[in-house]
Amino acid sequence: MNLSASSNPSETFYAEWQSTLSFLQDVMDILLQYLVTNFDRSTKVIDFHYPNELLQEYNWDLADQPQTLEEILSNCRIALKYAIKTGHPRYFNQLSTGLDMVGLAADWLTSTANTNMFTYEIAPVFVLLEYVTLRKMREIIGWPGGAGDGIFSPGGAISNMYAMLIARFKMFPEVKEKGMAAIPRLVAFTSEHSHFSVKKGAAALGIGTDSVILIRCDDRKFSPLEHFPVVFVVVSSLQGFVPFLVSATAGTTVYGAFDPLIAIADICKKYKIWMHVDGAWGGGLLMSRKHKWKLNGVERANSVTWNPHKMMGVPLQCSALLVREEGLMQSCNQMHASYLFQQDKHYDLSYDTGDKALQCGRHVDVFKLWLMWRAKGTVGFEAHIDKCLELAEYLYNKIKNREGFELVIEGKPQHTNVCFWYVPPSLRNMEDNEERMNRLSKVAPVIKARMMEYGTTMVSYQPLGDKVNFFRMVISNPAAAHQDIDFLIEEIERLGQDL
Amino acid sequence: MNLSASSNPSETFYAEWQSTLSFLQDVMDILLQYLVTNFDRSTKVIDFHYPNELLQEYNWDLADQPQTLEEILSNCRIALKYAIKTGHPRYFNQLSTGLDMVGLAADWLTSTANTNMFTYEIAPVFVLLEYVTLRKMREIIGWPGGAGDGIFSPGGAISNMYAMLIARFKMFPEVKEKGMAAIPRLVAFTSEHSHFSVKKGAAALGIGTDSVILIRCDDRKFSPLEHFPVVFVVVSSLQGFVPFLVSATAGTTVYGAFDPLIAIADICKKYKIWMHVDGAWGGGLLMSRKHKWKLNGVERANSVTWNPHKMMGVPLQCSALLVREEGLMQSCNQMHASYLFQQDKHYDLSYDTGDKALQCGRHVDVFKLWLMWRAKGTVGFEAHIDKCLELAEYLYNKIKNREGFELVIEGKPQHTNVCFWYVPPSLRNMEDNEERMNRLSKVAPVIKARMMEYGTTMVSYQPLGDKVNFFRMVISNPAAAHQDIDFLIEEIERLGQDL
Repeated sequence: MNLSASSNPSETFYAEWQSTLSFLQDVMDILLQYLVTNFDRSTKVIDFHYPNELLQEYNWDLADQPQTLEEILSNCRIALKYAIKTGHPRYFNQLSTGLDMVGLAADWLTSTANTNMFTYEIAPVFVLLEYVTLRKMREIIGWPGGAGDGIFSPGGAISNMYAMLIARFKMFPEVKEKGMAAIPRLVAFTSEHSHFSVKKGAAALGIGTDSVILIRCDDRKFSPLEHFPVVFVVVSSLQGFVPFLVSATAGTTVYGAFDPLIAIADICKKYKIWMHVDGAWGGGLLMSRKHKWKLNGVERANSVTWNPHKMMGVPLQCSALLVREEGLMQSCNQMHASYLFQQDKHYDLSYDTGDKALQCGRHVDVFKLWLMWRAKGTVGFEAHIDKCLELAEYLYNKIKNREGFELVIEGKPQHTNVCFWYVPPSLRNMEDNEERMNRLSKVAPVIKARMMEYGTTMVSYQPLGDKVNFFRMVISNPAAAHQDIDFLIEEIERLGQDL
Repeated sequence: MNLSASSNPSETFYAEWQSTLSFLQDVMDILLQYLVTNFDRSTKVIDFHYPNELLQEYNWDLADQPQTLEEILSNCRIALKYAIKTGHPRYFNQLSTGLDMVGLAADWLTSTANTNMFTYEIAPVFVLLEYVTLRKMREIIGWPGGAGDGIFSPGGAISNMYAMLIARFKMFPEVKEKGMAAIPRLVAFTSEHSHFSVKKGAAALGIGTDSVILIRCDDRKFSPLEHFPVVFVVVSSLQGFVPFLVSATAGTTVYGAFDPLIAIADICKKYKIWMHVDGAWGGGLLMSRKHKWKLNGVERANSVTWNPHKMMGVPLQCSALLVREEGLMQSCNQMHASYLFQQDKHYDLSYDTGDKALQCGRHVDVFKLWLMWRAKGTVGFEAHIDKCLELAEYLYNKIKNREGFELVIEGKPQHTNVCFWYVPPSLRNMEDNEERMNRLSKVAPVIKARMMEYGTTMVSYQPLGDKVNFFRMVISNPAAAHQDIDFLIEEIERLGQDL
């Protein structure tokens, strides 16, 4: 602060700030303008350019010399021009879509506060809000009094990896010091429709992907009652193999299917193995009195992944791992680094949560969830979820008997996932043989490419098992309405009829 | 969009937006006001409350029913009231301090764009900017043409874990499928002053903390030339143990010391083991022509951790892992999940970087670094770093002969870390015995507690090895000036003279 000229230092100080504030306000104006167009159905979802085009479209290089603030504003405009409008009512591409205004405001505040979750002393409010929010989430899971533990982690894949890490430590605590060499070979069980992060985690943790036994599914659900006990007995009888974890999925990525958690809990109890529920996608349904029965049994899990950034519309990233046993994360991960976690501080050290994380610095992900929860109430999340599931059912009803549409899965969707093929007129009367499959497999990619080039809407497609490329529609976007579902169907027909 | 009433749909649409925009502008006004006070030396760094006080000070609970927008604004004000002013010129508590206005603006834009780094199709601009920025960082490291690989990860601890994961895979690719059971017991080497994340990573990856050999340091540096070859030969001769990685530190957490990278590179070359450089803290010095010699040899590393959110002042979080060999991250981590990474898309799939990450969704951390780089130029980062190191030297010169101050390390600081004891008058004439050590160990915690209660400044303290609690001053805050260093010294004297 310049103390020389003015009798009131604050005046000088504030005056120096005018140009900065004016720059920030200019940025804000750009952002507000973008926000409005984000939700305007008459605008494109994406102004698509191929990577090499986009590299040439603008000079993105990093130079020795600075640019002016005017050029910086221009960079911001350009970045947004080519960005995906992830809040657009016709953006259905991912499990995380939509943009909540309170969540956004909270994220701006988080950036402005610019701290990390390392200790209470550097993030007092956010550490407390993590405590309050995780406890509330555990209450909703059904753990008495919200007791237990947890953390906000950088995404569902990391949350699932944490679960595996903690489960291994619970059974063989010596692994922390001595590594996998000192313990038997571990085996994890999950369904063939589970998220790839279960295998990724096993690879990273030194367990190995071969040790992840994928249980075959019927059309849309994990069927441990049929297959699991047999697989379990065979695997357990192998010398040196020890089953340690079942990762059940509440809301699979493609079909949105829910594993039968009560049956899985019974098996885990019988065989004394860790029950993890990957509810990254489906966990949000716990907020709905109408739909939460799909997760019945989740209260018997040892750990649960639940991503509010998916079905609850919280801005990215916001993923929680909830653990039933308190203190286990801490024992598993702590390194007692006294140079980082001083033990003679003047406040209650149980709020210094850094040592239970794999991360040292940890981004503040809780505030946007907390503030949205205050703004919407639990009833607001419930209404959002019920509406999205109603829209999915609307889509299902609309296409189930529509010419040219073929559902991948029979029956009403369990989540908002609706999977279907669009069959262009040229394929409709063909025999169901290899050539038809081959041609059908090329339909969705072409329609998707056209959607992106027109920029009108975006929806995901993929093959799965023996099923060739099909569309997977998911609805988590609060801006979506019936008209957008109608639009999607008609747009697919428009873009695919000549194929 | 309501198409009914207006002849111009956009008018209706924009009209509906007025209350939302007004709310966001109100939030922005709160943030701008906070920002200005953030930098005002006449304000407190922290309005400290004990956790139980803070829990009672306000009702933080999550309820069923929604709050009004007015109440939401009030929540924002309260959250900021109790937040740490991490941009305050007298906040020196962490390796990440300060708040850059362009970086902040970029983070606001990132939140507004609300996407993730999964694929080019959902983050075209950010994926390209990651490509451009990582290449530039590799060029600066000294890899020809900026060739290689890398990723922005959720913090230095995870970046270091990635390095260990990739190093293991490079030597024993079968570990991915078969786990640690199929390969020899691995050994990693690092200095006793390295970051605790090396051990944390080893625990998580199933290698075990016992397999991390800590090389004894002299006062302030890793000394592989003295100790490492002996240790290495002993360890290698043990049946079944295979050395696979040396994690050198460029800028240790407490002392800011730099390992001799050239000597370490020679050893790694001779014994064919992976050389990782943890430059989370010291990597920033590569931006300075005056100081980058301290990392000489980094160009011979196989991987480098470099956190722009530390010494380069980028808002949290922004950590890069750079890898010399291209494609290795992908082979190590990919799971070929075709339902996530469709192989028949219409653009160059090398831009779909998601499968080389452990995460599935990944937060956009690159834009703030990229935009700051555009705004400051390389020369701007250089000036910032040179200034911070000059301030550290100013502090060092000021206290080296000052009564009541005792340096932990002799000689000029290598980084901005200056470690010292404050010795209150009552201890100055005491013999150097256990009682004095015991009393001295209590000085820093009391002064720190008082600092926080007064809210005037914040600096870290810790014990290390046989050294009792001492202050570790670090300077990464661009707002800090000579007067703040002066203030810190006098404040420590004021708060500690009666002890």
